[in-house]
Amino acid sequence: MFLGRVLSCLAVPGEHRPIVTLTTDFGTRDYYVAAMKAALVRGCPSVRIIDVTHHVPRHDILCGSITLERAIDGFLPETVHLAVIDPGVGTDRRILVARINDQSVVCPDNGLITWAWRRLGQGQAFELTWRPQQSSSTFHGRDIMAPAAAMLASGDAIEKIAKPIDNPILLDIAPLRQASGNPHIIHIDAFGNATTNLEYAVVRSIGSGSYRVKSHRLGKLRRTYWDVAPGKPLALIGSSGLLEIAVRDGSAAEQLGLKVGDEVVVEQNDH
Amino acid sequence: MFLGRVLSCLAVPGEHRPIVTLTTDFGTRDYYVAAMKAALVRGCPSVRIIDVTHHVPRHDILCGSITLERAIDGFLPETVHLAVIDPGVGTDRRILVARINDQSVVCPDNGLITWAWRRLGQGQAFELTWRPQQSSSTFHGRDIMAPAAAMLASGDAIEKIAKPIDNPILLDIAPLRQASGNPHIIHIDAFGNATTNLEYAVVRSIGSGSYRVKSHRLGKLRRTYWDVAPGKPLALIGSSGLLEIAVRDGSAAEQLGLKVGDEVVVEQNDH
Amino acid sequence: MFLGRVLSCLAVPGEHRPIVTLTTDFGTRDYYVAAMKAALVRGCPSVRIIDVTHHVPRHDILCGSITLERAIDGFLPETVHLAVIDPGVGTDRRILVARINDQSVVCPDNGLITWAWRRLGQGQAFELTWRPQQSSSTFHGRDIMAPAAAMLASGDAIEKIAKPIDNPILLDIAPLRQASGNPHIIHIDAFGNATTNLEYAVVRSIGSGSYRVKSHRLGKLRRTYWDVAPGKPLALIGSSGLLEIAVRDGSAAEQLGLKVGDEVVVEQNDH
Repeated sequence: MFLGRVLSCLAVPGEHRPIVTLTTDFGTRDYYVAAMKAALVRGCPSVRIIDVTHHVPRHDILCGSITLERAIDGFLPETVHLAVIDPGVGTDRRILVARINDQSVVCPDNGLITWAWRRLGQGQAFELTWRPQQSSSTFHGRDIMAPAAAMLASGDAIEKIAKPIDNPILLDIAPLRQASGNPHIIHIDAFGNATTNLEYAVVRSIGSGSYRVKSHRLGKLRRTYWDVAPGKPLALIGSSGLLEIAVRDGSAAEQLGLKVGDEVVVEQNDH
Repeated sequence: MFLGRVLSCLAVPGEHRPIVTLTTDFGTRDYYVAAMKAALVRGCPSVRIIDVTHHVPRHDILCGSITLERAIDGFLPETVHLAVIDPGVGTDRRILVARINDQSVVCPDNGLITWAWRRLGQGQAFELTWRPQQSSSTFHGRDIMAPAAAMLASGDAIEKIAKPIDNPILLDIAPLRQASGNPHIIHIDAFGNATTNLEYAVVRSIGSGSYRVKSHRLGKLRRTYWDVAPGKPLALIGSSGLLEIAVRDGSAAEQLGLKVGDEVVVEQNDH
Repeated sequence: MFLGRVLSCLAVPGEHRPIVTLTTDFGTRDYYVAAMKAALVRGCPSVRIIDVTHHVPRHDILCGSITLERAIDGFLPETVHLAVIDPGVGTDRRILVARINDQSVVCPDNGLITWAWRRLGQGQAFELTWRPQQSSSTFHGRDIMAPAAAMLASGDAIEKIAKPIDNPILLDIAPLRQASGNPHIIHIDAFGNATTNLEYAVVRSIGSGSYRVKSHRLGKLRRTYWDVAPGKPLALIGSSGLLEIAVRDGSAAEQLGLKVGDEVVVEQNDH
């Protein structure tokens, strides 16, 4: 059985099928995603392409950053992540290549790397210096970043196409890793669940504390949606290891009027 | 030519690239789908992932069940299907592993398996007993079901991770295989076509009968949309081999006010 | 490094993993896309499937045609493109197999091939004569076209399944390659950018000319969105090498009231 599994699932010796993931705000109605995939295949014919999402809200770098961190957290070493939310295309904004979690990221240097950089830690940043002979002014995802991602997927060293930098642009968002200061909402998902920047380790240290957002009392931390009645709000640890505000069988964002940036108050019960 | 085709298309000897399909209600805006794909790749690095859909209406187990049956009907033996519409995540609902049509299915035991179980027949049901060392309470799709699907894709025997059961949860829906009793609408697709539970074999046996839904007379069975004028309703055999109500160049659901559960009346012409 | 790259990225000798791309108007809510993918895998087990889009507006052959051209322009030789926008399914409309840009296309013969045929040039057209033993009347994408695409991906010669024709159906749209006559809008993307049929080479020859659409003066050609103030309209060369009308940080279609077919006026400044 064990041998069978090895034979059936591991790659054939000598063969490598690198993975490139895609995170964009392109939507899926147009040819833009396919144009990037074509560039990846041209640059690395054996590539396996995995869509993270193409539905990041247009130009929403914070949302893209949080999504990208989750992808980098989940995938195997040597995965290449190509993230294109690029309102500055055509300007002289830099293109970033980052090495985080033994994986590589290619994205505009506009803050997209922030959440992975701050949450997963120990990243190295590079500026992409490679340029193609020809490039449009409006679609660097296809013309510059996808070919660069394909080179990395093909095994090229980052140093061959990029030079080290020490100041990647970072948004004003950071994981909250101490019990001082209040967390705030950083992301609202399609179900209306609101993720905060409060790390599980802190939540655990708070212990029997209770949570409030705006005027809504959420009580103590719950383990699952089913710990409250249908339609009731709750605080729990979401699947990304952060404090999350949800409503059982409903949308917390709608029902509680939540938006990104709202503060969540932690009331520690000392008795 | 023949040898060329064998060489170009069959897998290299000793190599296996198992397929795992995904059917969820996660949508594609968030990182959830990518997190499941990452778990699949971690568990079975050579996996090929094929999206069935991530747009099953949230928590709509009946719709997911009908979609899943179509996937199982279409794919090759040894395909693994991972289906996660899981309103009960975090409760003690079982996780099901099923063997149907020489393929494997991993899904919550909440009725999702129903339509494949009843329509394709001869299924075997198991309860997943394998659990990871760590798991969130809110995302078993990523933490439990995807790793289990990856094990099956890797060639592990079902018995290694699950135990036989004889009572998978089944919804109150079944294919209609006799001319007694009236069919009803089980699914409405994005075009507004309404699929019923009436099997083609019965429709054929009815012969010259005619069809009615609510107050709308559809006349006799048509072969294609083009057999009626634009805007007119019709009954025909849909691509899943079931009686379907459609409107040429329009939406039957909207125009005829149809919804899941509506009865379709078959009037047999005896003369 | 070079050898490493070759080893890591090129296919194993003797192995071929053909690519089939998909362009449809099926949406992603139903099982239809998965049914086509299953047919592709059955016909060519080693196939790699790449989604171009499933969100072409329903029955919009012109939009599908423009999307398909972009895919054919981008991918490698021997890619097979399967495009199914097929309002005539079930009628006796022909099914087309085309050879363009060293790639193969399978689609209904309803004009879908137009833009690739006219823009990329030197195409050869065939009528698919192969038919399966059984086929539905409503889903030729799954029953006829996907198996045919799989045969081509497997290395079958076109002549084995199709016969040459010289009159594929073409829509009334063509790239504008001379400075005579005014361009018109052929496509509006999800961001509201409006693509015209005016080729870059002509734009270049116009030089210092300026552009107008309806009553909106766009001024001279810009290089990037950032050459105008936020909210202002502009004309630039889009990523498909055609003149495009856009609004910086906005939707040209909404703000300027543009739709497919609208004429763009080129005013040559002769002084």
